[in-house]
Amino acid sequence: MNRTENFDLKKYLRERAALVNEALESLLPPSYCKTGNLDEVMRYSIFPGGKRFRPILTLACAEALGADPLKAMPAACAFEMVHCFSLVHDDLPCMDNDDMRRGKPTVHKAYGEDTALLAGDALVIEAFAAAAKTRVEDRPEAVALLVKELAEASGCLGMVGGQILDMEAQHHGTDKEGLLKVHKGKTGALIRGAARAGAIVAGASEEELAAITEYSEILGLVFQITDDILDYQDDPDPVSFPALFGLEESKRIAAEKTERALQLLEPFGERAVPLAALAEYLLVRTV
Amino acid sequence: MNRTENFDLKKYLRERAALVNEALESLLPPSYCKTGNLDEVMRYSIFPGGKRFRPILTLACAEALGADPLKAMPAACAFEMVHCFSLVHDDLPCMDNDDMRRGKPTVHKAYGEDTALLAGDALVIEAFAAAAKTRVEDRPEAVALLVKELAEASGCLGMVGGQILDMEAQHHGTDKEGLLKVHKGKTGALIRGAARAGAIVAGASEEELAAITEYSEILGLVFQITDDILDYQDDPDPVSFPALFGLEESKRIAAEKTERALQLLEPFGERAVPLAALAEYLLVRTV
Repeated sequence: MNRTENFDLKKYLRERAALVNEALESLLPPSYCKTGNLDEVMRYSIFPGGKRFRPILTLACAEALGADPLKAMPAACAFEMVHCFSLVHDDLPCMDNDDMRRGKPTVHKAYGEDTALLAGDALVIEAFAAAAKTRVEDRPEAVALLVKELAEASGCLGMVGGQILDMEAQHHGTDKEGLLKVHKGKTGALIRGAARAGAIVAGASEEELAAITEYSEILGLVFQITDDILDYQDDPDPVSFPALFGLEESKRIAAEKTERALQLLEPFGERAVPLAALAEYLLVRTV
Repeated sequence: MNRTENFDLKKYLRERAALVNEALESLLPPSYCKTGNLDEVMRYSIFPGGKRFRPILTLACAEALGADPLKAMPAACAFEMVHCFSLVHDDLPCMDNDDMRRGKPTVHKAYGEDTALLAGDALVIEAFAAAAKTRVEDRPEAVALLVKELAEASGCLGMVGGQILDMEAQHHGTDKEGLLKVHKGKTGALIRGAARAGAIVAGASEEELAAITEYSEILGLVFQITDDILDYQDDPDPVSFPALFGLEESKRIAAEKTERALQLLEPFGERAVPLAALAEYLLVRTV
């Protein structure tokens, strides 16, 4: 058993988020490209930011496999940049047409639609620049693996693919299988990729990578189920777990899958306590 | 002197474009992601395509430095994918709002604005996946250099930065210096990066890389000057070389710079004949 009772997850998340913010700050400082207002707009979409869940996951997975988590930092930040890029483009008028995000005007509301489009484009490109900055001694080929992982998680095989499926599901409706496919892409792929990136930096064996992969797939699923449940009362989305599986069944699946995730972490011992605490937290979170 | 008189550039370009198309076809086959209509839309923006100028440049630079040009093919295709992605997003209503591109409806006209946005996003991400597929024996660290090159050429430090500057110049006007900066980013950066990627695959020395870099910067400049001159009579753009430098001075700069480009290629001998012929052609082209 991983001992999570004595582990202060909130403190851990706060400290790791601060490290991620520091690294993002050094990857995209205020005078990074000095081109028009691009630095300002890219930074507007990245700071102050949210919980930094994906990059923290990358660091925690590297750590669980015995690596110095800081070695995984550029790759971790790459996943956060892709996440932020996706929010900027998702908010655009031709997509969700949202005016507010994290308590402030969305990028296109603050800077115009053309600038938001280009700043999003610039951000996803910087994500790859960040991933390529990861230095793994004696394994320079790891960079190619990280870039491949980031692309598969982000693009048509991952997040963007899920967004296309979500658009179709919103227009034409979907079933349980369709919903699972939407979320496997839209939210799952980036969480899975972020976790695997940490494992790649740590030089994971095939078994270790398989365990981290399954763990992260569960994490993404439970993240989405609890998200859907939290949203359901305010805004019942027909493409959501409570709508298609029912509330009780959704909760049962989340609890059962979380058990499995904790099992998968057992071989990693104490070093995987943050990952275990994270899985337990996602199941019971109320925000 | 590089002997270009007996070199059949048209045949060379045609043959190389066919090889590039074959490689793009295998990187993005019709059932690549099998997700909604994404394969169809991405392929719509890539095929049949234009002259494939950027990827051909990558191959020719690798060849000029003594490498098998086919080794540079994934990186070459990456630059073409970024070029196609930029056209899709440039055509969007919030940007140039174009209805037609290369004799067919633009992507958003054919598939809707949301799908065009996401397909563009997917394409730029696939460009990085392609770059990471480049295999350089004994130098696995070359992949990190290629990804860095692609990101710098495409993002806020390159093409996207140039697009932002162009938007500002279109709104507020610009001077000679501003125009040079716009084009250095908007068209120059991708041409420069494509050339340098070929040199990186070939394991260029510092001197060789410097020569290829300067050559490619000239190529981008002359490409833009002749483009501006060709467009000028139909549609006089205030942010263009003939408008800001005058027609005669623009032609003089292009001719003088082309001389310098040919000089830079001399040390590479016969293997650089395609690069020399390309520079001469860009100066005198009428389409």
